[in-house]
Amino acid sequence: MDFLDRLAARVEESGTYLCLGIDPDPAALPAGYPPDVLGVERLANLLVDNATRHAAAVKVNLAFFEAFGSAGIAALERIRARLPADMPFIADAKRGDIGSTAARQAVALFDALGADAVTANPYLGYDALAPLVERDGRFVYVVCRTSNPAAAEIQNLPVEGDPLYVHVARRAVEWAESRGNVGLVVGATAPDELRVLRGAAPALPFLVPGIGAQGGDVDAVVAHGPARGGDAGERRGGALLVNVSRAIADAAREGDDDPSAAVSAAAARWAGLLRC
Amino acid sequence: MDFLDRLAARVEESGTYLCLGIDPDPAALPAGYPPDVLGVERLANLLVDNATRHAAAVKVNLAFFEAFGSAGIAALERIRARLPADMPFIADAKRGDIGSTAARQAVALFDALGADAVTANPYLGYDALAPLVERDGRFVYVVCRTSNPAAAEIQNLPVEGDPLYVHVARRAVEWAESRGNVGLVVGATAPDELRVLRGAAPALPFLVPGIGAQGGDVDAVVAHGPARGGDAGERRGGALLVNVSRAIADAAREGDDDPSAAVSAAAARWAGLLRC
Repeated sequence: MDFLDRLAARVEESGTYLCLGIDPDPAALPAGYPPDVLGVERLANLLVDNATRHAAAVKVNLAFFEAFGSAGIAALERIRARLPADMPFIADAKRGDIGSTAARQAVALFDALGADAVTANPYLGYDALAPLVERDGRFVYVVCRTSNPAAAEIQNLPVEGDPLYVHVARRAVEWAESRGNVGLVVGATAPDELRVLRGAAPALPFLVPGIGAQGGDVDAVVAHGPARGGDAGERRGGALLVNVSRAIADAAREGDDDPSAAVSAAAARWAGLLRC
Repeated sequence: MDFLDRLAARVEESGTYLCLGIDPDPAALPAGYPPDVLGVERLANLLVDNATRHAAAVKVNLAFFEAFGSAGIAALERIRARLPADMPFIADAKRGDIGSTAARQAVALFDALGADAVTANPYLGYDALAPLVERDGRFVYVVCRTSNPAAAEIQNLPVEGDPLYVHVARRAVEWAESRGNVGLVVGATAPDELRVLRGAAPALPFLVPGIGAQGGDVDAVVAHGPARGGDAGERRGGALLVNVSRAIADAAREGDDDPSAAVSAAAARWAGLLRC
């Protein structure tokens, strides 16, 4: 099964757009957790065991594990192995590089780590993404309009009458043509841009971060996030994924009596807010 | 000592712009090396022991180690520890992400791996680079105009009369203002763009890949690569670094009788072609 099939199966089962983000910060762990790689792995395991069942997919930002060097990557490999076999697993790494390097990035993410989908940065052009895109069954979310405060600095520069991010979306539509395995990362903190991008790329699956701790707009995401055509548009929820990381992980810290129950309740609440 | 001071000291000692790239591909190892992480580490050690003394700096592209998961990162950590203490070490990772993630990227690259300098992708804007730039003594090369065939696809899009890469260079000049620790990655395969960028950013240090296997133009790099003003311009060689990876590593494979001597001779030859 390719990524969109795996995702569709989990969306049917969970009934939600929710993508559970596992980005554990050692400075924000529950009481009693050591502020190191052991504590980070413990929180990740708590999320896997209690929150994933409410989600349609899981996304890990690799930097939170890379920060501990090889010990962090070893922890991530154990966490990956702990995920349910049917759970779509997205490696948020924002890679992309000259061809010989991108080929090794594809091995790192798809083979060594076992990612079903990855995020990638478009700045180097298509050949820097080709080894990621040209993998049967896998999927690439191209970073298009991000959720950070300075996102507009480069992404909204005017190119022939449209902002740069619209041009990137148009390229991504072309890159998706041969295998249908390219989507966009679009931040929930930019609802106007999200609407514009849905118009520019009606059939591309969107991965939307920025909800929860970053303050993004749930209504705009649900209105404009689902694909409106093509293979993605025919699926329940339009292949939309909405990522929530800190707002669920923080429940473990705030629910000191029973972190497992607190995380499960928070994930269930977000799944409900993002039901499809 | 900050990065530019460390680099200047090595440039004085080596008399070259040469940056040794350590990007070992398991498909291109010398005869008798196992095509796995052991073979990759063995080639990297051969380069460290025989080629670094001819170079002004060392650059590692992390993907070539990430491809082996935690075992690859552990190998990279051993290689890092094997480098001479005075050798400037550049982690080519092309990172950059929303602030909370970028903070962990800074820990991964500067603290866990001990990089003196890193490469970063500008597409997400300044706040995605801030945790990297705002580290005293370290340095960030912003990916501006790359050496791959499709580099122009996004980087040369016209923005208000100038290509996008010129706008990125102007931002980088601003980002460099507070600490003087920002430079540009500019591919040697784009000599016209290199010349334009030296005009747009006269005082920024350049890291130039694309020489050797990628066929870049050495004369154009030496003519327009060195900084022409500011702190970088006052240093020998204008803080220019020219990366050579495969053209030196391949000597190990081609010099089967004595790979150590072959690598040393290849590095010495490139150091001579790139003397300053």
